[in-house]
Amino acid sequence: MSGKNKVLKNPTIGAMSIDVAQEIGHIVSQLRDIRDASLEHRNRLGRPPKLPSRKVLATVVDALAAALFPNRLGPAGLTEEGIDYFVGHTLDTALRDLTDQVRRELKFAGEQADADIQARTLVRAFAAELPQIRSLLDSDVLAAYEGDPAARSIDEVLVCYPGITAVIHHRIAHVLHCLGVPLTARIIAEIAHSETGIDIHPGAEIGESFFIDHGTGVVIGETAVIGKHVRLYQAVTLGAKRFPKEESGTLVKGNLRHPIVEDDVVVYAGATILGRITIGRGSTIGGNVWLTHSIPPDSHIVQNPHS
Amino acid sequence: MSGKNKVLKNPTIGAMSIDVAQEIGHIVSQLRDIRDASLEHRNRLGRPPKLPSRKVLATVVDALAAALFPNRLGPAGLTEEGIDYFVGHTLDTALRDLTDQVRRELKFAGEQADADIQARTLVRAFAAELPQIRSLLDSDVLAAYEGDPAARSIDEVLVCYPGITAVIHHRIAHVLHCLGVPLTARIIAEIAHSETGIDIHPGAEIGESFFIDHGTGVVIGETAVIGKHVRLYQAVTLGAKRFPKEESGTLVKGNLRHPIVEDDVVVYAGATILGRITIGRGSTIGGNVWLTHSIPPDSHIVQNPHS
Amino acid sequence: MSGKNKVLKNPTIGAMSIDVAQEIGHIVSQLRDIRDASLEHRNRLGRPPKLPSRKVLATVVDALAAALFPNRLGPAGLTEEGIDYFVGHTLDTALRDLTDQVRRELKFAGEQADADIQARTLVRAFAAELPQIRSLLDSDVLAAYEGDPAARSIDEVLVCYPGITAVIHHRIAHVLHCLGVPLTARIIAEIAHSETGIDIHPGAEIGESFFIDHGTGVVIGETAVIGKHVRLYQAVTLGAKRFPKEESGTLVKGNLRHPIVEDDVVVYAGATILGRITIGRGSTIGGNVWLTHSIPPDSHIVQNPHS
Amino acid sequence: MSGKNKVLKNPTIGAMSIDVAQEIGHIVSQLRDIRDASLEHRNRLGRPPKLPSRKVLATVVDALAAALFPNRLGPAGLTEEGIDYFVGHTLDTALRDLTDQVRRELKFAGEQADADIQARTLVRAFAAELPQIRSLLDSDVLAAYEGDPAARSIDEVLVCYPGITAVIHHRIAHVLHCLGVPLTARIIAEIAHSETGIDIHPGAEIGESFFIDHGTGVVIGETAVIGKHVRLYQAVTLGAKRFPKEESGTLVKGNLRHPIVEDDVVVYAGATILGRITIGRGSTIGGNVWLTHSIPPDSHIVQNPHS
Amino acid sequence: MSGKNKVLKNPTIGAMSIDVAQEIGHIVSQLRDIRDASLEHRNRLGRPPKLPSRKVLATVVDALAAALFPNRLGPAGLTEEGIDYFVGHTLDTALRDLTDQVRRELKFAGEQADADIQARTLVRAFAAELPQIRSLLDSDVLAAYEGDPAARSIDEVLVCYPGITAVIHHRIAHVLHCLGVPLTARIIAEIAHSETGIDIHPGAEIGESFFIDHGTGVVIGETAVIGKHVRLYQAVTLGAKRFPKEESGTLVKGNLRHPIVEDDVVVYAGATILGRITIGRGSTIGGNVWLTHSIPPDSHIVQNPHS
Amino acid sequence: MSGKNKVLKNPTIGAMSIDVAQEIGHIVSQLRDIRDASLEHRNRLGRPPKLPSRKVLATVVDALAAALFPNRLGPAGLTEEGIDYFVGHTLDTALRDLTDQVRRELKFAGEQADADIQARTLVRAFAAELPQIRSLLDSDVLAAYEGDPAARSIDEVLVCYPGITAVIHHRIAHVLHCLGVPLTARIIAEIAHSETGIDIHPGAEIGESFFIDHGTGVVIGETAVIGKHVRLYQAVTLGAKRFPKEESGTLVKGNLRHPIVEDDVVVYAGATILGRITIGRGSTIGGNVWLTHSIPPDSHIVQNPHS
Repeated sequence: MSGKNKVLKNPTIGAMSIDVAQEIGHIVSQLRDIRDASLEHRNRLGRPPKLPSRKVLATVVDALAAALFPNRLGPAGLTEEGIDYFVGHTLDTALRDLTDQVRRELKFAGEQADADIQARTLVRAFAAELPQIRSLLDSDVLAAYEGDPAARSIDEVLVCYPGITAVIHHRIAHVLHCLGVPLTARIIAEIAHSETGIDIHPGAEIGESFFIDHGTGVVIGETAVIGKHVRLYQAVTLGAKRFPKEESGTLVKGNLRHPIVEDDVVVYAGATILGRITIGRGSTIGGNVWLTHSIPPDSHIVQNPHS
Repeated sequence: MSGKNKVLKNPTIGAMSIDVAQEIGHIVSQLRDIRDASLEHRNRLGRPPKLPSRKVLATVVDALAAALFPNRLGPAGLTEEGIDYFVGHTLDTALRDLTDQVRRELKFAGEQADADIQARTLVRAFAAELPQIRSLLDSDVLAAYEGDPAARSIDEVLVCYPGITAVIHHRIAHVLHCLGVPLTARIIAEIAHSETGIDIHPGAEIGESFFIDHGTGVVIGETAVIGKHVRLYQAVTLGAKRFPKEESGTLVKGNLRHPIVEDDVVVYAGATILGRITIGRGSTIGGNVWLTHSIPPDSHIVQNPHS
Repeated sequence: MSGKNKVLKNPTIGAMSIDVAQEIGHIVSQLRDIRDASLEHRNRLGRPPKLPSRKVLATVVDALAAALFPNRLGPAGLTEEGIDYFVGHTLDTALRDLTDQVRRELKFAGEQADADIQARTLVRAFAAELPQIRSLLDSDVLAAYEGDPAARSIDEVLVCYPGITAVIHHRIAHVLHCLGVPLTARIIAEIAHSETGIDIHPGAEIGESFFIDHGTGVVIGETAVIGKHVRLYQAVTLGAKRFPKEESGTLVKGNLRHPIVEDDVVVYAGATILGRITIGRGSTIGGNVWLTHSIPPDSHIVQNPHS
Repeated sequence: MSGKNKVLKNPTIGAMSIDVAQEIGHIVSQLRDIRDASLEHRNRLGRPPKLPSRKVLATVVDALAAALFPNRLGPAGLTEEGIDYFVGHTLDTALRDLTDQVRRELKFAGEQADADIQARTLVRAFAAELPQIRSLLDSDVLAAYEGDPAARSIDEVLVCYPGITAVIHHRIAHVLHCLGVPLTARIIAEIAHSETGIDIHPGAEIGESFFIDHGTGVVIGETAVIGKHVRLYQAVTLGAKRFPKEESGTLVKGNLRHPIVEDDVVVYAGATILGRITIGRGSTIGGNVWLTHSIPPDSHIVQNPHS
Repeated sequence: MSGKNKVLKNPTIGAMSIDVAQEIGHIVSQLRDIRDASLEHRNRLGRPPKLPSRKVLATVVDALAAALFPNRLGPAGLTEEGIDYFVGHTLDTALRDLTDQVRRELKFAGEQADADIQARTLVRAFAAELPQIRSLLDSDVLAAYEGDPAARSIDEVLVCYPGITAVIHHRIAHVLHCLGVPLTARIIAEIAHSETGIDIHPGAEIGESFFIDHGTGVVIGETAVIGKHVRLYQAVTLGAKRFPKEESGTLVKGNLRHPIVEDDVVVYAGATILGRITIGRGSTIGGNVWLTHSIPPDSHIVQNPHS
Repeated sequence: MSGKNKVLKNPTIGAMSIDVAQEIGHIVSQLRDIRDASLEHRNRLGRPPKLPSRKVLATVVDALAAALFPNRLGPAGLTEEGIDYFVGHTLDTALRDLTDQVRRELKFAGEQADADIQARTLVRAFAAELPQIRSLLDSDVLAAYEGDPAARSIDEVLVCYPGITAVIHHRIAHVLHCLGVPLTARIIAEIAHSETGIDIHPGAEIGESFFIDHGTGVVIGETAVIGKHVRLYQAVTLGAKRFPKEESGTLVKGNLRHPIVEDDVVVYAGATILGRITIGRGSTIGGNVWLTHSIPPDSHIVQNPHS
């Protein structure tokens, strides 16, 4: 059933007589055969995919975050006189690197002809959103400070809170997603997912003053819509209820299948909210609640009071 | 409701005529305006916050861990004759770097006058706790070995288990928290949170022989108190039940709001324990249990037996 | 009860008169005493453990992944003519580094005599499995693409999905586990756990076309057996129900205590499946379900329908 | 006469009232003015020169040297089975990086149209010469071993001797010079000059079995021609006698103005040989000799015997 | 007479019975005794010298050179719009690092009280000279291009010529020397000496349009004064004739003891010019000439015509 | 006569039809053939030479220098209390790395059997010489300070002077040479040669208080013997007069062929002293002097007074 038995029965461990050099050559050649078959299967033989690099995008996002918050996320000795030069130089470098990655995605997606011009235009439009992103993040940081009794200062929140890290990545990724490079956006989202355990699909729309506390295990789906002043705790899922299939048996992709959460809603740890339902404004969803239907504004849902 | 619509309607993508150099200059200037407004709002104009560096603190904790366990977490070729020199040099360097970070926090907190002397005194007191920290960690490692049927050796536990990584960070962070640098402590806690998915507030008091298995999603709040020989599984929450607000509407900060878990308690995966309640010694809390009231010693709580 | 009180009462903070140099010397000497006591306790005085290095193994796995998928996980500018040289050189280097780590584990485990030859033989057997690992991973990537409505291309899946990262690590770790280096295997599993929040014990047997979506909080135990075309969501546990103790009071190690999940099963987010039970082929387990008994093929289990 | 006086009289040191931020801005602006004036002067305003990178070329030459002599100049642990993969992968990478640098030079030289194709063609031709370069270098290493009484082995010579380092760089640079990228070639020559104090213009033609002992201060001019089995010591100059000017007063560039040194000649330390003269085969030139006329074969020239 | 005999007779190699750990401890303790004796001898016991760092200064000079010539010595992808941000940020960082090093020298020189303010003032004065330094260097680059028949472009000269590297370092070091940090200046000069073999004391005053060809072995003394449009070749010495001693027998330090070279002088390779003599404007000094007396303008000195 | 013509006539540049992949494969295969022929020629087929690494040895020497002079050549923030730990840890690491390199040389030299024990014994003997090396270097630094009118402090000399860099390397290399690892010693000497332009064979015996000023171009041969308080200037050669050949025509290796320079001798710039002659104590050799016979004590030799 698994690869295990095959390994255990493998007689080569006891009697190892094949020459090692042949062996590496043999493995290289086997891997090439599998690779070529896979490329052929995907109609990519002769033009293997060159995808955006996660490593480069991680650097880009770190640089953008430092340009957005130079005093708190920038280098240690930054002085007042040097700060605009730092911001300008960091943006210039990061946007150039981002353009390279965007170009890769556009080429990979088949738009070869004017990938270069498109990439520049797209990144320019992205750059123009940065002040708006900073303003939204300021509202998020304030929401975290006000929403957590353990928070001692606004600055602590920016430096420490994984929820803020996740939202910085999301607000950047969401703009890129909307501008037409969903793979680049997704890689940025997964960088945050890996760092924080918070998994927000870049397609999700999230309003100002958003706060996720603790955060590990939070999942927010592609078509979720979240209003202003919403607060989530760890392990909350805003997911899809079911995955309709097409007649061919393949999943229908892209339909609206995740919840709408209106302004001023709080969702406590472990709650699971599934499907294209609406959580009315001002509602509170208790810990571990399992919810698959819409609720009106100002509802208070709690788990069965059996404990 | 979100930033998306704004982007999609942004007409600049089609007609991009502004000179790029002007654009970067424009963005730099917009970001400065937002930054200055934010600094003014926080009464920090002219003295922007210089916070402890997460990157430096990560290095400090790695160095301290290597000094505490040089054979297993130190460099590869360490010899018996060189081990004390390694420990001494590593401590000397790590404590100096820690002093820099502590000084930053003290200055940030407004204690400018004798921040330097205070930082040295504080780190000296911290250093004096290191042997005690090592002894506690030895008890934790042993508890992990004894508590997990899959553990094959004590050394494996130290190198592999995310629960141990989290506890190394916590025991260091907790001493710093008690000594008066809660931001430094919190950053260290979040480094562990990011690596392990285990979120322990540095304020939590945890006794010897503590073991968290698997660990992803565990949350332990600021005022939690945990006795000796306690064992937790993944996704356990020791949280607050509610967040009382002051008359002004802001959250009350710092009150005792998390559980007390007495000696020899086991809490299975996904259990949620909320509020300043007491779990009596020797109790067992079953998986996914939701618990908001105190229970006497030797209690055995399980989820509704509906499955 | 905790280290906190001790620290707070520590009188050294107020009156710090001891010379600092003496202090570091004192701490070094205290740490040595504790270390020697610990080594003696483990019968390792004079031969402290030299364990495999997590850092080196992380590099090895990254290199193996790049050799398995050079176009998508290899370096940026790789050309068609250079690809086999890249694969061959990367394998040669990674396997040599792996041999060093395997040798360490064998020596640590007490097999000093022919550790060198054993390590080479073992790594050769491991290398021979690489083409098979690649084929299994191709099936996993395809399963992810087909199982997630948000996936836009097979290549996106390989680069982005944490479930794929976890499975790459698992398939490598599992072969090493079966070949007799469980500690090396475990460290590799924990590297993935830290990156993805997905905790798969290297002993678990997993069939082809396996897909974990989102993934944070998933735990799969040592003796779990998973068939083909199985799909899991975040926070699913395939765990042990209880931990039998030997007469001496120590836990029984190594017995079959985790579930068997047959082909074509889907387990939704947060479900907890415990004990050596069997989930019959084609079954669906709903979100948050708590399951401790076997179910026949094609079962559909859902949580209490109270929502 | 120098910048000193200006600095000493600079009144700004005593009375420093200008705001620092303005100052950096002022310097940046002054530097821009000078830069623009300089670009305008060179007719490069709007297309500033992008030159080959010394840092990248240093990496390329190190990689080529490792590919030519993998056992002695390659990485430490190279095994017999992996050696061809190392050579192939190193060549593939180094030649790709070299192509980038060559493309820059071609573009800088004004050949914009098909710079990319030309660069590839040129580097392909360069690569085809590598086996010939290795053979020549083998003859040089042997000559060094046979020519120095202090040499204990052929391998020592390759690893230690600055003369060999210089010749490795030269033989690579010379082929590039002949193929039409003199700037790239010159940068490589200057890398060797900096490391060894030996300054060989890449235009110089040098036959097999060439040896320079000690080497510091050796200068070999652009149009020098050196036969087989020639040996030079430190501080030898093969230079130009005079620099004829054109009517406009500018130096005539590129004429044949350096010596021809025939086969089997030895030139001892500090000798200066100037102009398009011929040193006949088998001749010996003594230390510190100053020579500006041709000499027949088998001549033995020594300094005035005044000491 | 040397350390050799002692080593060869050392009986410890044959009979090595001392414990190694003791040995390292013994060496550490011996080195401490020698160190303390040396510090005591220099009246520095208790305040060991903290000198400027060569490594940091090398970085500072590289950054300043990139800020002065961003297109040719800056990073690869620099765009027109980003260039001033690069220059400003690079200056800001480099000047801050330079301030740290200058502060160290001032403290080392005994000026403890206001070392910080002095360092800032001094570096500000230095920064104000940068545009002037760039202008001088432009004249030097042009002189190199016009003076070397092998030079193909002005840009090649800047990137390749060791003489230019040496002059960039010198012009920076000279301003620092004049401003009162001779040790910092000297370290910068030695960085160039190591890279190029050209040894220019930072005290030397050098006019515009200065060119050194090849350069290895050039030595220019502390009190040398060089006019405009001067050209030197390799191994030229502008040195002191004798070193007068004070009555106490120690050397007199700081007197004017090196040559004055007036405008438009050319000095060919290997010429040695010693003492406070004057080389009249427009003169030519032939190769290997040894000169210890002043000569009038337009002199042409050649070596004895014995060859 | 040179490789040039071959390249220029190479027809492949015009008509490039061969597939590139074949080409790299072809070059790899050609290089293998040449390599195998070369190994066969040196009787090393099947056991290619693994030589000491220049890069590692450079690190070792830097570490030893920092351990010898921790305040001036060690890391920036070193504190009094940490200094012995730094020295001990740095020595422990550097000596371990040195042992690896020594082992390589012993194995390369054919002593396979007990290379490991020999390497440890040898490095232990080397380590025991370190205090003596430090004392000699202290005398050298003092000699430099007293011998150069431009030197302002003893500390400046240690940090700046290339002559001191060269002597640090030499005193380390000489002990290793005497202990039986001449290749390791030679590589260390060449590291200094590359940095300083000063070429001292590790076999040369040099007494205390040795000073080389400026230094570029100095060459000191293998069998030279230099007394106490000797001072050399740039471009001085202490070389061999002739190279006697054996009957077979190969050079005689290892005979005494370089000068003996007695105590208190000064040799000015550019002087050339050749052969096994003796320069009597207290003598002065003028600049550019060419000397091939012994001279009695207190001689003063100057160049022909033609200038």
